[in-house]
Amino acid sequence: MFVYRRAVRFAEVDAARLVFFSRYVEYCHDAMEALFAALPGGYEDFTMRRDLGLPTVRLEIEYRAPLRYGDVARLETDVLRVGRTSITLRHRIWRDADDALVTVVEQVVVVTRLSTLVPQPVPDDVRGLFDAHLVPEGAARS
Amino acid sequence: MFVYRRAVRFAEVDAARLVFFSRYVEYCHDAMEALFAALPGGYEDFTMRRDLGLPTVRLEIEYRAPLRYGDVARLETDVLRVGRTSITLRHRIWRDADDALVTVVEQVVVVTRLSTLVPQPVPDDVRGLFDAHLVPEGAARS
Amino acid sequence: MFVYRRAVRFAEVDAARLVFFSRYVEYCHDAMEALFAALPGGYEDFTMRRDLGLPTVRLEIEYRAPLRYGDVARLETDVLRVGRTSITLRHRIWRDADDALVTVVEQVVVVTRLSTLVPQPVPDDVRGLFDAHLVPEGAARS
Amino acid sequence: MFVYRRAVRFAEVDAARLVFFSRYVEYCHDAMEALFAALPGGYEDFTMRRDLGLPTVRLEIEYRAPLRYGDVARLETDVLRVGRTSITLRHRIWRDADDALVTVVEQVVVVTRLSTLVPQPVPDDVRGLFDAHLVPEGAARS
Repeated sequence: MFVYRRAVRFAEVDAARLVFFSRYVEYCHDAMEALFAALPGGYEDFTMRRDLGLPTVRLEIEYRAPLRYGDVARLETDVLRVGRTSITLRHRIWRDADDALVTVVEQVVVVTRLSTLVPQPVPDDVRGLFDAHLVPEGAARS
Repeated sequence: MFVYRRAVRFAEVDAARLVFFSRYVEYCHDAMEALFAALPGGYEDFTMRRDLGLPTVRLEIEYRAPLRYGDVARLETDVLRVGRTSITLRHRIWRDADDALVTVVEQVVVVTRLSTLVPQPVPDDVRGLFDAHLVPEGAARS
Repeated sequence: MFVYRRAVRFAEVDAARLVFFSRYVEYCHDAMEALFAALPGGYEDFTMRRDLGLPTVRLEIEYRAPLRYGDVARLETDVLRVGRTSITLRHRIWRDADDALVTVVEQVVVVTRLSTLVPQPVPDDVRGLFDAHLVPEGAARS
Repeated sequence: MFVYRRAVRFAEVDAARLVFFSRYVEYCHDAMEALFAALPGGYEDFTMRRDLGLPTVRLEIEYRAPLRYGDVARLETDVLRVGRTSITLRHRIWRDADDALVTVVEQVVVVTRLSTLVPQPVPDDVRGLFDAHLVPEGAARS
C-alpha cells in the first residue's frame, strides 16, 4: 500500500464549500505521480523522455463522505492487478483527522506510447514499481 | 436527451496534449448546470436559494478516445432513472467533428440539503426536468 | 470593444465562496480565445497549425469587487496598443446584473513561435483582428 | 524570505506544453498557505474559524521564462510592507534546476472579515508572521 497525504487547498472546494467531485480524480493522479518518484526521474522522465504514459481507460468512484477546506486527504493506493499492458489500482481516500472513508476509486490504466497512443507491455521497472504494492485478490475486496 | 457542446479550452489538456481525464467530470457538471437552465433561476437558484444540491455518490467512466485542443466535445445526457432521492444520468461525450465516442459516464446524484447534507425527496420541478430526458430501460443499455 | 459573457461555474469559487482570484486570468484567456473566433480556425488553428501563440509577458490586475456563484461575468476587452511583436489588452470584468466593476486587467502578450519561443512580428490577419478593437490612447485611461 | 518548492503537475501545462499563465497565481497562493502553517491551525483556522481572509486587491506579474512538466518551481516570498490593513508581498518564482527567473509577482492583500468583506486591522499574530519575512525597502527593489 502506498500512502500519500495532501491538504485540501483553498480553491479546491465548490459553491457548496465541499471539495468538488472531480478533484478526487486529480488527487489520485497526484498519488500516482508520487508513487512514481521511486523510479529515477519519476513520472516526468517516464512521460517526457521515454514517451510513455498511463492513460486511464476506466474509473469507478464511490463517494461516501465529503472533504472541506481544513481537511487533510490521506490516499491509500493498492495495486489489484498488473496485466500485460494494463494496471488496476484502488485508491481509498480518507479524511486524515478522523479516518472517515471519503471516496473509493478503482482505476484501470494502460501503458501507452504517447506519440502514437498504442498500448505497450508494462516495462520491467514499472512492473516492479506496482508489484511492490500488489494486494492478494481476497484482501482487495474486503 | 439533452445535448450540450463546448470547445476544449487551451488550459484543459495535460503534458501529453490530451484533455486531462478529470476534465470530463467537469464537462458533465457543466452539462448538468446547462440542463438546469430550464428551471427559473437555474442551478444557481437551486443551490444558493433553495439550499439543495446534487452531490454525486457514484461515477463510472469509460475512456474510449482522446480529445485535444481544437476539438469540440458534444455531450449527450440521458436520464436512466429518477428514484425517490436519487437520479441516474448517462453522459456520452463525442468528438463533434467526426462523431468518435470519447467517454461514457454513468453518474448517480442524490438530492441533498446542502446545509445539513441530508438526502431529500426529488422536488416536483426537478423531477419534471429530469423526466423530460428519461430513456426506456432497454434503450439505455443499447 | 469585444464583449464576452460567461456565468460563474459551481467549482470556480473558493472556500470563502468568492470566485478565486486566479480564475479571472482564465476568464481573460477565454475572452481572447473567443475574440480569435473571428479568424478562420480560431485560436486553435493559430496555435496548433501555425505554431504561433500569445504568451503573456506582463499582467496588472486590480480587484475591485467579488463575483459569486450565480453571477455572470461580462468581459469588455479593449486593445490599447499593437506593436511590432506585442499587443496590449485591457479587460474590464463587470458583474453583469448590476454593472459593478469587478476587475481590471491589463495584459501584454507577445506573438511567439511555440516550438522555439522566439518572438515574431504580429501577422497581418492578427493585426487586423486586434486593430478592430483598438481604442484611442486618451480613451484607454478614462 | 520564505521559500516554498513544488513540482509542476501533469495537468498544469497548456496546449503549448508550458505551465499555463494563471497557474503561477495559484502557486503564490499555495506559498502563502504554506507560510501560514507557522500559525496554529494555519490558513484554514484563520479563514474558517476566525472568519478572516486575505483577498488580493492588486497583482503585478512579469513573465520572464517558462516552466514545463518535469520542472520544480521554487518560490521565494518577501514581505515588502505591512500596513494597517494591507500587506504587500513579492514572490519570485525560479526554475529550481538552473535558477532561471520564471516570474516575479507583486501582490497586495487586505485583511478582510469574510462574512462582511470589510477590511480589518492586521491581527498581531499575522503581523508577526509577515514581519519575519520583511525586507528593507532598498533591497526590495534590487
